Amino acid sequence: MAFLRNYWYVAATADEIPAMGMLGRRICGESVVLFRGEDGRARALEDRCCHRRYPLSKGSVEGCSIRCGYHGMVFNAEGQCTEIPGQPTIPKQAYVKRYQVIERHRWIWIWIGDEENADPTNIPDYHWFDDPQWRGKSTRFHVRANFKLIVENLLDLSHLAFVHTSTIGNRAVVDSATVSFDRGDNEVRVNRWMRNVPPPPSYRRASVLPFERVDRWQIIHFMPPAFCRLYVGAMKPGMTEDEVISAEKMEWLNLNAVTPETETTTHYFWGQVHNHDLDKPELTELIFKEVEKAFLEDRDVFEEQQKAISEGINRTEVNTFADVGALHAVRIIDRLLREQDTAMGQSITPDQLSYGPHW
Amino acid sequence: MAFLRNYWYVAATADEIPAMGMLGRRICGESVVLFRGEDGRARALEDRCCHRRYPLSKGSVEGCSIRCGYHGMVFNAEGQCTEIPGQPTIPKQAYVKRYQVIERHRWIWIWIGDEENADPTNIPDYHWFDDPQWRGKSTRFHVRANFKLIVENLLDLSHLAFVHTSTIGNRAVVDSATVSFDRGDNEVRVNRWMRNVPPPPSYRRASVLPFERVDRWQIIHFMPPAFCRLYVGAMKPGMTEDEVISAEKMEWLNLNAVTPETETTTHYFWGQVHNHDLDKPELTELIFKEVEKAFLEDRDVFEEQQKAISEGINRTEVNTFADVGALHAVRIIDRLLREQDTAMGQSITPDQLSYGPHW
Amino acid sequence: MAFLRNYWYVAATADEIPAMGMLGRRICGESVVLFRGEDGRARALEDRCCHRRYPLSKGSVEGCSIRCGYHGMVFNAEGQCTEIPGQPTIPKQAYVKRYQVIERHRWIWIWIGDEENADPTNIPDYHWFDDPQWRGKSTRFHVRANFKLIVENLLDLSHLAFVHTSTIGNRAVVDSATVSFDRGDNEVRVNRWMRNVPPPPSYRRASVLPFERVDRWQIIHFMPPAFCRLYVGAMKPGMTEDEVISAEKMEWLNLNAVTPETETTTHYFWGQVHNHDLDKPELTELIFKEVEKAFLEDRDVFEEQQKAISEGINRTEVNTFADVGALHAVRIIDRLLREQDTAMGQSITPDQLSYGPHW
Repeated sequence: MAFLRNYWYVAATADEIPAMGMLGRRICGESVVLFRGEDGRARALEDRCCHRRYPLSKGSVEGCSIRCGYHGMVFNAEGQCTEIPGQPTIPKQAYVKRYQVIERHRWIWIWIGDEENADPTNIPDYHWFDDPQWRGKSTRFHVRANFKLIVENLLDLSHLAFVHTSTIGNRAVVDSATVSFDRGDNEVRVNRWMRNVPPPPSYRRASVLPFERVDRWQIIHFMPPAFCRLYVGAMKPGMTEDEVISAEKMEWLNLNAVTPETETTTHYFWGQVHNHDLDKPELTELIFKEVEKAFLEDRDVFEEQQKAISEGINRTEVNTFADVGALHAVRIIDRLLREQDTAMGQSITPDQLSYGPHW
Repeated sequence: MAFLRNYWYVAATADEIPAMGMLGRRICGESVVLFRGEDGRARALEDRCCHRRYPLSKGSVEGCSIRCGYHGMVFNAEGQCTEIPGQPTIPKQAYVKRYQVIERHRWIWIWIGDEENADPTNIPDYHWFDDPQWRGKSTRFHVRANFKLIVENLLDLSHLAFVHTSTIGNRAVVDSATVSFDRGDNEVRVNRWMRNVPPPPSYRRASVLPFERVDRWQIIHFMPPAFCRLYVGAMKPGMTEDEVISAEKMEWLNLNAVTPETETTTHYFWGQVHNHDLDKPELTELIFKEVEKAFLEDRDVFEEQQKAISEGINRTEVNTFADVGALHAVRIIDRLLREQDTAMGQSITPDQLSYGPHW
Repeated sequence: MAFLRNYWYVAATADEIPAMGMLGRRICGESVVLFRGEDGRARALEDRCCHRRYPLSKGSVEGCSIRCGYHGMVFNAEGQCTEIPGQPTIPKQAYVKRYQVIERHRWIWIWIGDEENADPTNIPDYHWFDDPQWRGKSTRFHVRANFKLIVENLLDLSHLAFVHTSTIGNRAVVDSATVSFDRGDNEVRVNRWMRNVPPPPSYRRASVLPFERVDRWQIIHFMPPAFCRLYVGAMKPGMTEDEVISAEKMEWLNLNAVTPETETTTHYFWGQVHNHDLDKPELTELIFKEVEKAFLEDRDVFEEQQKAISEGINRTEVNTFADVGALHAVRIIDRLLREQDTAMGQSITPDQLSYGPHW
């Protein structure tokens, strides 16, 4: 198995599923139909009719059920068939898989694994999208690359100095950084401080801080399977510990939820929020656009990497000091995959670890 | 082997092969060139020069032969090489496979299997395309799906109530149908009667019958490998047995010949004929357009099903009462495939039964 | 291994690599970045950063080094990493493969195999592109076919009578040819003489010779892995041996260097030069355009052949007298591949000989 199953994943943004509407999407290799019935609640079923495999997402929503568009079988919110047109009885095995779904913080969360383990309290905290103290915007990218390439990217921000020099990066991000790592059993924290450095172009364009030089920070937190939350910002350089709390600061959160679609493609959900200038939607938009530009550059990188991997060139990678956080995250994922396979009585092949079949 | 070989297949419509012209086409996985020489007769050869594999269909027709467009070798109607430019002698093994071809009822029929078994009397009856008592029109669709998905579709017309509600279907097709099945060793008949029901939109638009309600019938006949002929129509409801013969009826035939191209793609030849209003070509066109619209909707269904199958999700299908005919047809095909493989001394793998490698 | 490694290959035309510029290209299955640093010299490195596989060709040239566009690692002309941003030390294994490169006769030559065997004196002679006694023009085609299909084409010019009748061929090329073959251990020569024949359309359009009929010759020389040089031309028919030297002749060279990209795709470098009318660039252009038109026709042929091969139809080919040269060339290539694999302690599979996996 190439995916961690017993986890919550972001399946869609809330507005991707309209009222009485459906969305067919592949998540962790499974074909899922997300839909809202007449009660407005988001639900998910297997996106294959149990009769002749036609995608339910090509049918229609009726009440809180879906009617298949081929022979008209109806499946209720539990996935149970409740109507077979032209037939009075319904066989017991006429059902499709039902998924646990929670709508929270403007995202639709889905549980891919065994239903009895689906505990909503395990959904990671992304409350800032809803918090009146914060403003922001989120979106979804489709990426033709394995999800771990995105995790690695977010855990080693030294790349901002080379990939994103027109927006959120400059050379100071790598040359002037003090970096430390907290490596937990199931989480990683990377702490980056850049003292007395010029702010990057996006910070200047946002015009939140008047300073020519700043103390800048990036605090990155990873949780499996692929959640990365970044607390970043800047303030006047050289503040004492006492001054920091009341100092004029620019604080942003970059919030990422990376959902595998297949072994080589990924749904990349991310958003950007800020806690200043809450009454300036044009600034919220500007900040989002800056990060979006950078993330589109990242997407090009991921897809080039995946092409190289898929071409099958087998090469030991050389690691750098900056990789410590990313390496630990990938090790956590690979360890959990191994544990999952042991629990399922399967044996994982080395190919399935790291970046997929060709790594 | 995924295809039944010792059968006639429709290879092309008669007008797809112009005078002195060629058509390269894959049939049951074999590359075939169909052509007409100076005598106008349709013929077929292997579409690979025996020299360097260049498709003969890229060359030119000379007399009743084809000259390869690469090095100019000529192959006659028997597939024998008759000229190697620049060389006086012709090696015995310089030939390409010849196929038996019959032009009948505006279709070009080809025999894919062993030539000695090619008996033209075994070509199924599609004489209505030529019959002066009938008028109609036929065409070819290219479908990216296994041929059995089309057979199943034609043998379970309950889908008209859901897929074709804007043309030839309405809910009465499933709610008011009395269905019976005749299951032979090598054929299936499905009999559907819908008594005192509203006619579907296409029947209204054809304006053949003045009745607000009709008795409607669909008699479907299947023969392997994949011939489906449908006798459908409607008349005033409640006629006694005596009245039926002289009653004002609308009788249509929907005539299908489904030819595998590869395991996952199909040439779908079909036509629609009627025996009323023979002097109204605009009505013939209207009827054809109604059915064409419905069949294009079916094609979308087949291709979605094939995508699901090709994604490899392995799931037991749930069958309904309405599937009896389709299931029997697929069982006949699979039994004949097994018999064919036994006869050829090969063993078929389970994968090759039903819908191809991923079923 | 499907490619002969210890040979020089043409990697690019000189002008494909601009000053301070890069070109990512796959050669014999290897991803290579070709670049020119500040000294203008053409160089080549493995096109994968040893850190996270991002193509170096997506980065930037600095001095005579390349900086990776992802995390900024710098690799010098030897492939050694000389800078890891944010890190004082560089691990020994931080390097990428370096290739030997020679710029000669307007082509960039690369040595794919073991560097110690890279002897520039083994680069085949293509000096005519530089020679003031000759004028010409060269280009590169990308071909979706195995390289041997191109070699075969060039060694059997009988195809000009069928594929290129609007340019460099006419029926006399096959009907009136006297052909002889010189088969060496590592080279092939095919000698074709067509006496007292009408010149082909391109010869007429070039208007170099006033004769209505000519003696025409094609002398083809093959060297492995895939170099084909053709000396072709025409003169007044029936010249005695004494007269030939001073006779008014039209002499052209068609110079081909065929570089495998993958097993089923090829970089086809070729040029056309002439030693008459050196002051008429419009004639140089006309001659090039005539041959280019013919070679584009050939490309269509190669790609159709490869499609047939990739469809996996396994068929013994019938050979003709005209194939003697081509067959010997392919035998040389296959023998050298076997020798290479023996030397590398590997065993080649029959599939890898001739035209790739499906042959």
